[in-house]
Amino acid sequence: MRAWEKNIRRVEPYVPGEQPKIQNVIKLNTNENPYPPTPKAYEAAKGFDMDRLRLYPDPECSDLVHTLAEYYGMKDSQVFVGVGSDDVLAMCFMTFFNSEKPILFPDISYSFYSVWADLYRIPYETPALDDNFCIVPSDYYKENGGVIFPNPNAPTALFMDLEKVEDIIKHNQDVIVIVDEAYIDFDGRSARELVNKYDNLLVVQTFSKSRSMAGMRIGYAFGNEALIKALNDVKFSFNSYTMNITSIVYGIEAVKDKAYFDECVGKIKATRENAKERLAQLGFTFPDSTANFIFASHKIIPAKVIFEELKKRNIYVRYFNKPRIDNYLRITIGTDEQMEKLYKALEEIFEAV
Amino acid sequence: MRAWEKNIRRVEPYVPGEQPKIQNVIKLNTNENPYPPTPKAYEAAKGFDMDRLRLYPDPECSDLVHTLAEYYGMKDSQVFVGVGSDDVLAMCFMTFFNSEKPILFPDISYSFYSVWADLYRIPYETPALDDNFCIVPSDYYKENGGVIFPNPNAPTALFMDLEKVEDIIKHNQDVIVIVDEAYIDFDGRSARELVNKYDNLLVVQTFSKSRSMAGMRIGYAFGNEALIKALNDVKFSFNSYTMNITSIVYGIEAVKDKAYFDECVGKIKATRENAKERLAQLGFTFPDSTANFIFASHKIIPAKVIFEELKKRNIYVRYFNKPRIDNYLRITIGTDEQMEKLYKALEEIFEAV
Repeated sequence: MRAWEKNIRRVEPYVPGEQPKIQNVIKLNTNENPYPPTPKAYEAAKGFDMDRLRLYPDPECSDLVHTLAEYYGMKDSQVFVGVGSDDVLAMCFMTFFNSEKPILFPDISYSFYSVWADLYRIPYETPALDDNFCIVPSDYYKENGGVIFPNPNAPTALFMDLEKVEDIIKHNQDVIVIVDEAYIDFDGRSARELVNKYDNLLVVQTFSKSRSMAGMRIGYAFGNEALIKALNDVKFSFNSYTMNITSIVYGIEAVKDKAYFDECVGKIKATRENAKERLAQLGFTFPDSTANFIFASHKIIPAKVIFEELKKRNIYVRYFNKPRIDNYLRITIGTDEQMEKLYKALEEIFEAV
Repeated sequence: MRAWEKNIRRVEPYVPGEQPKIQNVIKLNTNENPYPPTPKAYEAAKGFDMDRLRLYPDPECSDLVHTLAEYYGMKDSQVFVGVGSDDVLAMCFMTFFNSEKPILFPDISYSFYSVWADLYRIPYETPALDDNFCIVPSDYYKENGGVIFPNPNAPTALFMDLEKVEDIIKHNQDVIVIVDEAYIDFDGRSARELVNKYDNLLVVQTFSKSRSMAGMRIGYAFGNEALIKALNDVKFSFNSYTMNITSIVYGIEAVKDKAYFDECVGKIKATRENAKERLAQLGFTFPDSTANFIFASHKIIPAKVIFEELKKRNIYVRYFNKPRIDNYLRITIGTDEQMEKLYKALEEIFEAV
C-alpha cells in the first residue's frame, strides 16, 4: 500500500438503479416520468441565446427560486434550490445534522440516507416500520440529532397523513425535521403548509418525477428563512455555481406550465389506479400507492425470479436485495402501453412456471 | 437561540465575483471567455430529443469521459468529471485530504481552497509566495497532508515551469498532489504528461474558461485509476447524478471542435499580449500572464479607486481586499473591442485624478 492511500476517504458507494444503454427497453426501474417535459422547455431551448453559456450562471438561481416561490405561495427567502433533491438532501445532512446524537429515519426508506450519514460521519438509528410498512410516529419521540423521512415513503409508496407528520414535528422541535417529498405530487398532501408554523421544518421536493426532468437535475426545499440561509451558506462554501443555466431556464418553464403538469400527473394517476387492479388480478399484493410506483410482492413467485425474467424480456423494474423487502419489486408507473406489455410479460412468466 | 440552531454547520461562505444583472456591462471580473461556445453545441441543442430529459443522465458520464480521454490520449479510467472544477476540487478535498497533518497551498491562491479546508475541517498551512509572486518549491518539502496549487496561479496569472511542478511532486510522493489547471490552455504546459509517471498526481481542468462554458458547469480531473475510482466512489455516495444531460451533450461538442477552440484561444492570447503593452503604457505593472487575465497594479492610482471608477462606467474588474494584493486588479481579457473601451476608461480616470 502506498502511503497516500491511507488518507483516502473510504465510502460504501450507493448503487443507483440500472441505466440500460440498450434501446427498446421498457424502463420501469428508476421512477422516471414516462411523459416528456413541457413543450415550453423545448421552445425555450430553441430560442436560447447560446452566448449565455460562456457566462457563469446566477449563483443564487434567483429566477428559478422566485418562480417556485410564486407558484407555491412562499417567499423567495423560503426556497433553496440544488442539483437534484439528492444534492439538496446531502446539503441538508451536512448543514443540519451536526449533533453527537443519532439522527432518526425509518429502517425501510430511501437508501441514500445511510450513505450520507456514513459520508459525513453522522450517527443514526433506524426505527422499524410496522408490519404494514407504516412509520410509527412514537418511535420518533426520543432524543435525537434530527429526523428525516420520505412521504410518501420510498420504496413502499405509502403516504402518511399530515396529522402524523405534524405529530412527529411537534415532538421534535429541538432538531431539524426533513420531510422528503419526491413523490408528493402523485396524490399526497404536502407538509409545505406547515413551514410557516414550524421553524425547524424543511420540505424537499424534486423536478425528477412529476415534472419529467430527471435529466436536468433540479431539486428544491422549503423552510424558514434562517434554514434556507444556512443551506445557501454551506452551498456557497462548497460550489457557488452548481446549477447550470439550461436547468434554470427549463426548470422555470416546467413550473409555469401548470396545465401540462396536471395533465401528465393525471394520466400517471389513472394508469396507477388501473395497475393496482391488474397487478392484484395477477396475484400481487402491495401497500396502497400514492406515488408513481407500486411496491409489489407476488403471492407465489419470488420477486427475484420475476425481476430476472422481466429483464430477459427487456422490461426493467427495481429489486432490492435487502432484509424485509427482498420479496418485493418496485414497479414504476409507465404509459398505458408500457404497462400492458408488463402485464403480458408477467402472464407469460407465470404461465411458464 | 432555538435548540436546533446549535447543530447548524457554521461556514464562512465564499463571495463569488459579482454577476451584474444590468445590461450593457463590460464584464471583465470573473475570467469568462468573451467568445460564445462552439456553434456545434447550438446545433446539438436544436437537434436534441427533449424526451431524454425525463430520464436520469448516465451517472458515469461515460460519453463525456470517453471524449475527454480520447482527446487527451488518456484511458477512460483516468478521467473524472464533475459539476465545474469547483465540484471536482471539493470532491478531491473530501476524498484525499483526510490526514491529521496540514495540507499546503500558497498564501496567494484560489480563495476557495481555505473555504473547503474549513468546510471539511482539514488543517492547512499557506507558504508565502516570494516577492515576485512565485511559488517556492522548497516550501513544499516539509511533512504535510497533501498539496494543492493552481498553475498558472490565480489571481497572479503566473505559470510555474513544469520542472518545478515535478520537483514538488517528487518531494511529496506520500500524499496527493493536485495541480489546478483552470487556465492552462492559454499558454502553459500541462502536468497531464506526468500522470502516468506519478500515481499520486491529480490534474484538474475546466470547461469554464477556454471552452466558453462557465454556464454549463463542467470540470474534470486526470489521475491514476485508483485515484479516479476513489473520487467516483465519493461522488456516488454524495449524488449519483450530478451532471445534467445537456452539459454532457454540449461538453462533448466543445471537446470535439478543436478548430474553434484553437481559434478562440488564439484570439484571447493575441488580445492579452496587446493588453500587456497597453496596460504598461498606462502605468500598470504586472506579473507576466499566461492566463486569460492580467493581475495589474498601477504605479500611482490605488487599485480600489480604479476598481470603483471603472464600475461607475459599467466596466467590472475584480478587486480583492486582501493582504499583499489589495493594490491589484484582476482584469479578464475580453474582446479587442471591450479592451479598447477599458483602456479609454482608464485614460479618462487617470486624466481626472
